[in-house]
Amino acid sequence: MPTHKPPARPAAVIHQQQRIYSGRVIDLDLVDVDLPNGHRTSLELISHPGGAAVVALNERQEVCLLYQYRQAAEGWLWEVPAGKLDGKPPEQTARAELAEEAGLTARDWRSLGTVVSSPGVFKEVVHLYLAQNLTPVPPNPEPSEVYEIAWISLKEALRQALTGELRDAKSVIALCRAAHCVGITF
Amino acid sequence: MPTHKPPARPAAVIHQQQRIYSGRVIDLDLVDVDLPNGHRTSLELISHPGGAAVVALNERQEVCLLYQYRQAAEGWLWEVPAGKLDGKPPEQTARAELAEEAGLTARDWRSLGTVVSSPGVFKEVVHLYLAQNLTPVPPNPEPSEVYEIAWISLKEALRQALTGELRDAKSVIALCRAAHCVGITF
Repeated sequence: MPTHKPPARPAAVIHQQQRIYSGRVIDLDLVDVDLPNGHRTSLELISHPGGAAVVALNERQEVCLLYQYRQAAEGWLWEVPAGKLDGKPPEQTARAELAEEAGLTARDWRSLGTVVSSPGVFKEVVHLYLAQNLTPVPPNPEPSEVYEIAWISLKEALRQALTGELRDAKSVIALCRAAHCVGITF
Repeated sequence: MPTHKPPARPAAVIHQQQRIYSGRVIDLDLVDVDLPNGHRTSLELISHPGGAAVVALNERQEVCLLYQYRQAAEGWLWEVPAGKLDGKPPEQTARAELAEEAGLTARDWRSLGTVVSSPGVFKEVVHLYLAQNLTPVPPNPEPSEVYEIAWISLKEALRQALTGELRDAKSVIALCRAAHCVGITF
């Protein structure tokens, strides 16, 4: 049976790379590559600094969710607290976002691994964490982030993640991995 | 307790939109908006046609995974069969991708909902499906897609999705929802 780590495979060879756009959050490149099968193709690749996202779980087994306005989704989405990396280590970004967005610090941190958001064109990798033993601190939300905070039971959040009511990729995955991590079966 | 559908909230008002790039897969716009809190900001928004992804589950409770080269991830990733929407309904794209990539048709299809890949900047929505009662057909892979096919038990795929060994967002979510759908607990 194959495992998740098959033998090493060749990578593509980059022939040419053209920077189309350098922006505040993302960069866009057109990249001509010889794929590992020898086929030459041109790819649109979007660079992104990556992110960190946090399942904050309190002693009542409730998680902190943000109901956030997202122009890219043309509406409001339920998400776990999260933010872009800015050169600091991912866990430090996770701690800062949890404090700023949700007004929480946590004594116990566990990694829930990473997730690749959309590997066809988008280079973003999000680092996921479970934070426990929470203490309130003054939040410091950015004016460009519009959201309300809610607490729901991890079991209910998990149900919504699995039925498709909760749709934000990093949040669905972080909630499933957090539930697995603390031994909640579903 | 809050539900996933709080009262309707206002949307942002778009002031100006500038097309930076129109590409083969994605478009990039700079959009000036007044956010629902009144704050004016400029956003980089990447349009994407969206996608469809399929957990193909055979009668031995194994799923079809592709070990695929992804330049955006600078390496090889395990993923479920998937592809971009091209104007056809999502389920039709799912059927076409399962046939072309994995050489499979399925008699039974169930929706596993949708997922928003990265709502900060990226508009992609992926439609997820569970396909059962599979029959082999001749595959028809595109030369620009480099992958190998493997079958592993849904339980093992789920374990990898939850521990972080499997990292592709749509695949992790599709596998968790598929397991939930067929009553596998984890």
